[in-house]
Amino acid sequence: MRVQALIFDVFGTCVDWRRSVAREVAKVLPQVDALAFATAWRAEYDPAMARIRGGERGYVALDDLHRENLQRVAAEFSVSAPERLAHAWERLDPWPDVVAGLTALKARHVIAPCSNGSIALMTRLAKHAALPWDCILGAEIAQDYKPKPQVYLASCAALRLATDQVMMVAAHNDDLFAARYAGLKTAFVARPTEHGPHQTTDLGPESDWDVIASDFHDLATQLTP
Amino acid sequence: MRVQALIFDVFGTCVDWRRSVAREVAKVLPQVDALAFATAWRAEYDPAMARIRGGERGYVALDDLHRENLQRVAAEFSVSAPERLAHAWERLDPWPDVVAGLTALKARHVIAPCSNGSIALMTRLAKHAALPWDCILGAEIAQDYKPKPQVYLASCAALRLATDQVMMVAAHNDDLFAARYAGLKTAFVARPTEHGPHQTTDLGPESDWDVIASDFHDLATQLTP
Repeated sequence: MRVQALIFDVFGTCVDWRRSVAREVAKVLPQVDALAFATAWRAEYDPAMARIRGGERGYVALDDLHRENLQRVAAEFSVSAPERLAHAWERLDPWPDVVAGLTALKARHVIAPCSNGSIALMTRLAKHAALPWDCILGAEIAQDYKPKPQVYLASCAALRLATDQVMMVAAHNDDLFAARYAGLKTAFVARPTEHGPHQTTDLGPESDWDVIASDFHDLATQLTP
Repeated sequence: MRVQALIFDVFGTCVDWRRSVAREVAKVLPQVDALAFATAWRAEYDPAMARIRGGERGYVALDDLHRENLQRVAAEFSVSAPERLAHAWERLDPWPDVVAGLTALKARHVIAPCSNGSIALMTRLAKHAALPWDCILGAEIAQDYKPKPQVYLASCAALRLATDQVMMVAAHNDDLFAARYAGLKTAFVARPTEHGPHQTTDLGPESDWDVIASDFHDLATQLTP
């Protein structure tokens, strides 16, 4: 059966969170190393979700985790960050190939984020970055966080598609291993500067993913018969 | 506080379900009165949801209710309808003012359906009708059916907005009474031929809704400062 829907990791895969968050940090905290602050903030992301994945804490939207993490990182940097800086994650810029690639893919497929971001966050980010999603899927409709299988399964169920009719697109091999485990098709698109010029992880595919693409233009070309 | 998001009733308000469903019926059941069949099918819609609203039955997506209702109506018309006809509700045409009006509104507001249709149904309908939604809200994220207050409240919560920052747009006064009761702003747009040339209900506003518009162009004009 042909893949009918493509669902996407967003932070890192569709948008350059590192330089975009650093830009927002620089606006309100000119006294800190903005790239270091952005990196430290992002580093709090997975541990915050881990407590929810593990059942220690009920589902809390990523907007709130970002806000909590912001205060922790600000304390580490010995600054006081305004609460509104948490909205920096709604103003991330897309990688240069993303909008045109998604627009081409949308002609033949349903396209949607399958991110750990909330519906509100993904909606506002899409408006900022002009991401032409058909709908918003991901963590909030599953009330849990990737890479838990139910996040991928809830996204397929919301589209009323079988898992093998849906392809997960990500720049992170771990995301694709989890999606494959849940039964989805997989596509890898490398983002070798997501973590800056000295990135050491996810520089290439670590398995025989169904599609391995150089960018979203290439992904669209490979999926067009 | 300015209205930040507009959420829309879809069947009747955005799309002409009656003539669109009749067209799909005529394709596969040429022996029946297609408009009568469409009207009879639609008449099963509210009773099917009422059991779920009342708690007699757990949440079942409208796609499945449409399928069940289709078999009931086909029996009344003494025909056998193919299951795939249930997908007729994914191929409804918009009223002529809708796509341009939504596009204008999208420039300044988040726009989303708040329909009793599922995420899958609303997503496929949006692709067919070129409805430029920012995200899909409504019954499925609430796991209940309008006019229960939680459907409106869940839509506001998903956007992380207060109820008075969200405006419900509908051609049905009952929908707006329920939205106002839940705390939302309200806009009425008349669709006087939704039920055909002899429609007797919802021909005009039945209360002092926050906005009363002649169509979606007028709605966009009234909401633009």
